[in-house]
Amino acid sequence: MSLTIGVDVGGTKVAAGVVDEQGDILVSTRRPTPSASPEHVEETIAALVTELRREHDVEAIGIGAAGFIDAERSTVLFAPNLAWRNEPLRDVVSKRTGLPVVVENDANAAAWAEHRFGAGRGEPDLVCVTVGTGIGGGVVLGGQLYRGRHGIGAEFGHMNVVPNGRRCGCGQRGCWEQYCSGRALLHEAREIADVQTEYGARLLALGGGEPEGIEAVEVTQAALEGDAAALDCFEEVGSWLGKGLADLAALLDPGVFVVGGGVADAGKLLLEPAQRVFAEQLTGTGHRPLAEIRLARLGNEAGLVGAADLARVR
Amino acid sequence: MSLTIGVDVGGTKVAAGVVDEQGDILVSTRRPTPSASPEHVEETIAALVTELRREHDVEAIGIGAAGFIDAERSTVLFAPNLAWRNEPLRDVVSKRTGLPVVVENDANAAAWAEHRFGAGRGEPDLVCVTVGTGIGGGVVLGGQLYRGRHGIGAEFGHMNVVPNGRRCGCGQRGCWEQYCSGRALLHEAREIADVQTEYGARLLALGGGEPEGIEAVEVTQAALEGDAAALDCFEEVGSWLGKGLADLAALLDPGVFVVGGGVADAGKLLLEPAQRVFAEQLTGTGHRPLAEIRLARLGNEAGLVGAADLARVR
Repeated sequence: MSLTIGVDVGGTKVAAGVVDEQGDILVSTRRPTPSASPEHVEETIAALVTELRREHDVEAIGIGAAGFIDAERSTVLFAPNLAWRNEPLRDVVSKRTGLPVVVENDANAAAWAEHRFGAGRGEPDLVCVTVGTGIGGGVVLGGQLYRGRHGIGAEFGHMNVVPNGRRCGCGQRGCWEQYCSGRALLHEAREIADVQTEYGARLLALGGGEPEGIEAVEVTQAALEGDAAALDCFEEVGSWLGKGLADLAALLDPGVFVVGGGVADAGKLLLEPAQRVFAEQLTGTGHRPLAEIRLARLGNEAGLVGAADLARVR
Repeated sequence: MSLTIGVDVGGTKVAAGVVDEQGDILVSTRRPTPSASPEHVEETIAALVTELRREHDVEAIGIGAAGFIDAERSTVLFAPNLAWRNEPLRDVVSKRTGLPVVVENDANAAAWAEHRFGAGRGEPDLVCVTVGTGIGGGVVLGGQLYRGRHGIGAEFGHMNVVPNGRRCGCGQRGCWEQYCSGRALLHEAREIADVQTEYGARLLALGGGEPEGIEAVEVTQAALEGDAAALDCFEEVGSWLGKGLADLAALLDPGVFVVGGGVADAGKLLLEPAQRVFAEQLTGTGHRPLAEIRLARLGNEAGLVGAADLARVR
């Protein structure tokens, strides 16, 4: 049985686990992300790997990180959340651990995991959209992860959907993830609570009486309880999801969309408006097969599992 | 020397030619598109093939047509300009001619030709944008034509770029090709001639004194003469080209963009604003390599040459 370690480097924590050929996590461990310093993060990764290797014999390490990874899957070119620039993560971790290392964009790794072991199993042409704080994207075409010429493909969150629209952390305006994300959900909920106080009373109460006190998980809670204003927020964000998927289908024509991330925990509250608007706004609708939109199955562990599987020598 | 026939089925003419392994057209011929009836078009294709086979021994036929072609490259699912629905073009033409036939979307065929013999030679990850009356798209990834799960990928012209924007023939609103195309160029030129009569005097004169009399070729002519209003039209359309290419780069991260079609005959008048806006609006700009934007080399014959090459048994 071939085992590898998957590592998920996030802004707040570094998670690592030993993963087998079926995508099952045998054991996992995590530590807080020490600081923005690449050296400290690399030390943490090495420490987690040492810990995991005490019990298991592993052949390689796959690291998933949010950011632009180069085409050689070796260097983090640009990671806004970690403030990294041109960090040779592969070689540093390989030297520290003595194991082969592959570095992959976290959303690409998650898409690969859903293709291999999750909601997209058996589907060769898959687009995975992770709707969390922002949007992560991954594309599997013909059964292969599509990474782009420079390794920077599938940055769906930064498609422009509104000319001169809301500002984005990437420096542009009107990016999809400003309208379809946990951040967008909060934007709606706080706006309702602020200006439509009766309609937004439940949201306001959950926020402790302050619009700024409302968090995404509370919008989901209120929507699941049937609160009209909270449902309205999912209708808005779900509609933007459907619009963006229609653009992606026009370009990539996948067989299946897999939608994951924290916002997708709301399930059909997000997916129903998305499916309706997708079918309405797809070019040539009525004259072409409609791609299925499925919920992701692997949850928060998709990035770790996918990175581990991509590190496996096949 | 292996020879194949390429056929380009357009709304006004059907062109066919014998093409060799280097992408050279040995002989070509054309007839007006007889009518919207599939049967008459199929007769015309068969007649052109018979004519070409008198002098040359060919092994297969590739047909490029504007529309949705299925994943088996056999059936025209939907062709708005030809009013075709579920037409089994491959089998009908194969039966009439006794030769193997491949049917391909015309813009896909053009992209393949530019990859094999034109501006994208040697580039494995190529996105081709044909800016004519509308926009045609084709994608080559890893040296293979990417067709999508159902054969309907690369419909770039129907990315939404303006929510609730200009109406499109596809039934939606705000599609890219309503802002970046020959049609969009005319929209600008006629609007200027209509409401800014002094600024638009040269355009109005070329239109015989009527805004509606202005044609795209005249806007190009005036721009090449240095007319400020005509240059303004290319600035506008070129900017929209750059914006859309930034979206495509965020998603597909190609090595090279190839821009063809009638509007691209204006060369740098179109490409300079496109390159500037592309570099400005690309997500993560400054932290990633910039894809090169090149003019197509094969002109109107790209579709015919590409279809012929795709029909070749390799």
